[in-house]
Amino acid sequence: MPLLRGRTIVNLFFEASTRTRTTFELAAARLSADVVNLEVASSSTSKGESLLDTLATLEAMHCDMFVVRHPESGAAHFIAEHAAEGVAVLNAGDGRHAHPTQALLDAYTVHRHKPNFSELTIAIVGDVLHSRVARSQLRVFGTLGVNELRVIGPRTLIPAAIEELGARVYTDLDAGIADADVVIALRLQRERMRGAFVPSEGEYYRHYGLSVERLALAKPDCLVMHPGPMNRGIEIASEVADGAQSAILEQVSNGLAMRMAVMSHILGARVPQAELA
Amino acid sequence: MPLLRGRTIVNLFFEASTRTRTTFELAAARLSADVVNLEVASSSTSKGESLLDTLATLEAMHCDMFVVRHPESGAAHFIAEHAAEGVAVLNAGDGRHAHPTQALLDAYTVHRHKPNFSELTIAIVGDVLHSRVARSQLRVFGTLGVNELRVIGPRTLIPAAIEELGARVYTDLDAGIADADVVIALRLQRERMRGAFVPSEGEYYRHYGLSVERLALAKPDCLVMHPGPMNRGIEIASEVADGAQSAILEQVSNGLAMRMAVMSHILGARVPQAELA
Amino acid sequence: MPLLRGRTIVNLFFEASTRTRTTFELAAARLSADVVNLEVASSSTSKGESLLDTLATLEAMHCDMFVVRHPESGAAHFIAEHAAEGVAVLNAGDGRHAHPTQALLDAYTVHRHKPNFSELTIAIVGDVLHSRVARSQLRVFGTLGVNELRVIGPRTLIPAAIEELGARVYTDLDAGIADADVVIALRLQRERMRGAFVPSEGEYYRHYGLSVERLALAKPDCLVMHPGPMNRGIEIASEVADGAQSAILEQVSNGLAMRMAVMSHILGARVPQAELA
Repeated sequence: MPLLRGRTIVNLFFEASTRTRTTFELAAARLSADVVNLEVASSSTSKGESLLDTLATLEAMHCDMFVVRHPESGAAHFIAEHAAEGVAVLNAGDGRHAHPTQALLDAYTVHRHKPNFSELTIAIVGDVLHSRVARSQLRVFGTLGVNELRVIGPRTLIPAAIEELGARVYTDLDAGIADADVVIALRLQRERMRGAFVPSEGEYYRHYGLSVERLALAKPDCLVMHPGPMNRGIEIASEVADGAQSAILEQVSNGLAMRMAVMSHILGARVPQAELA
Repeated sequence: MPLLRGRTIVNLFFEASTRTRTTFELAAARLSADVVNLEVASSSTSKGESLLDTLATLEAMHCDMFVVRHPESGAAHFIAEHAAEGVAVLNAGDGRHAHPTQALLDAYTVHRHKPNFSELTIAIVGDVLHSRVARSQLRVFGTLGVNELRVIGPRTLIPAAIEELGARVYTDLDAGIADADVVIALRLQRERMRGAFVPSEGEYYRHYGLSVERLALAKPDCLVMHPGPMNRGIEIASEVADGAQSAILEQVSNGLAMRMAVMSHILGARVPQAELA
Repeated sequence: MPLLRGRTIVNLFFEASTRTRTTFELAAARLSADVVNLEVASSSTSKGESLLDTLATLEAMHCDMFVVRHPESGAAHFIAEHAAEGVAVLNAGDGRHAHPTQALLDAYTVHRHKPNFSELTIAIVGDVLHSRVARSQLRVFGTLGVNELRVIGPRTLIPAAIEELGARVYTDLDAGIADADVVIALRLQRERMRGAFVPSEGEYYRHYGLSVERLALAKPDCLVMHPGPMNRGIEIASEVADGAQSAILEQVSNGLAMRMAVMSHILGARVPQAELA
């Protein structure tokens, strides 16, 4: 589908993420766009050029879209505010704030299996505190009118005001997963496994690991999802990850389709920058 | 413009430069060439293969052009001398020696605003000593018959025999910028800011920084240029860099066009290497 | 040749190799495939994701082929066993085990000069012990019915059971090279040059370096080959590497053609993964 032939998409990654970068790169390639990968730690910003000058420079090369990944919350928004008119900015994950295309592909994945959002109970399990994925999911599922949204995890990993995003908080997995239609396990970052947040990997799995026994408490056809990459045996058992109810690999496939859709939707409505030159 | 479809262009970078590599990569992509990026520090030369063997190997893969960036003066010339007949070598910056496509894009940028070179006074300000850009600019502007060429900077940053390239030397910015039609600020490399060359950043800016007040000494429509990336507040004030007289981002746009022009001009006249196989 | 348009090929490199990666990348680009380069040390596996999860994720993105380079013998086979049905795995070198496309391009190179394999004596000189290239060559040349296969090297660098692959062992270069139709010099890895395997570089060259004098003991039209990158003056003299009997650069050209052939042969017979989605 050469929908984006002649368009230039820049993967502007301030944080390494092979998986995410690869899906955006492949999505752009499938649409015949030209793709430039910039790992920004090694670029001109290390020579003392400001971020805004880097953006202006890329815009002057007639780039049509920045796909931005950044460790700080709000970075994509900051870039979008300062980008030239007509240049699109796609947030590919910023700090703990948001990861919109992930949440969209998750919603699409749910929709293919259970199309009536207003009848669903969706439970998100794990490290909600540090998760941009969870925040975007709550926003998307809320917008789509999901009946009941739950977040499940230890008090140390649940952010204070999460109820404002429409979620009910559970610290007990058995209670939180009961009768759920969809359960989404979140990745537990390695660095959380030591120290103040979680006593130990084994302890975490015992309380919040998605095992076959735990999954049996949800609805019989409960869909299992995970944004990847997984820590098997920590937040999810291999039997569950690879089981019949798992949509985890389907999420990956849908991720490619969703990113193609978002890119062509956004850029299709804009004049190519190179033509404005 | 699929002018270079089926051609293979190798970005042979012995020195990291995201900005320059990206413009060449985009220029090649816009012309539908296949592009291979080789950061040579991490390639076979670190396995003990000689540079000439690396070149011969790439040529045997029917590469059509090497775009060479190298920290040593003369490297591109050395490679061009040893490249196989029919393979083009483009200098993308070698040591302090030359950066021809930068100077060509600068000349083109000047030409679009002030087409009569024989009436112009062009002043280059800053670290001329270490600047391949300045040397190439002097050569190009000299060839194009610019009326008066000036270089301005502290004695420590002006090379001994620069007058031979047709430039008048000024150590005083106020005198050097007077009535100029074009002023080009050069980047001050971070490593020059400490030690023998420059007493301090603040001191440098006070004497050679292109401020609004200094620019007022030039002609009222004096064009402001900079090869980038800029050190704002050191060699140039933000008000000047972003001001109405600045052509700095236009230089970037013209850089893409100029590299496309040079690549298609050179390769258009040659038989594709893959067809000779 | 847009034979592979719409196909996605992943260079899955667990070991850095610019030369090999570049030939596969160029081969894929010439066939209009989309290429993704993954250096796996820096990817999700370092985040604790298992290799099999990385594979499953790439398959879920509808990748058609993995080109695998790995420091451990058997890695490509392991990946092929676990890859999804319909996904092709190409071994681009695994440990000491095999490097099939190299051996195929070598056989093709020999064939273009000396088409009757059943009349040929082929001698492989050097570090056979650590060489995946030598093992694959013995297998391919044996299959093609080469009359006599010889391996030549110090006892410390000849694997114990190499005769089982049909090779006669020589520890004396003069005896081993006598009347050979083809002589293939192997690369001596830097790390072997110190310590137990080889007393010194000079000593190694004196005994096993392919010099003009030594080559004179082979047939007058004996073809000289080397898989590259070469250590000139260690396993091969420059006069021989660059001499009239050398087919070393022809090997590189044939390598590109052979990889294009293998890729299109394998993928041409398969339905694109993206169409199965």
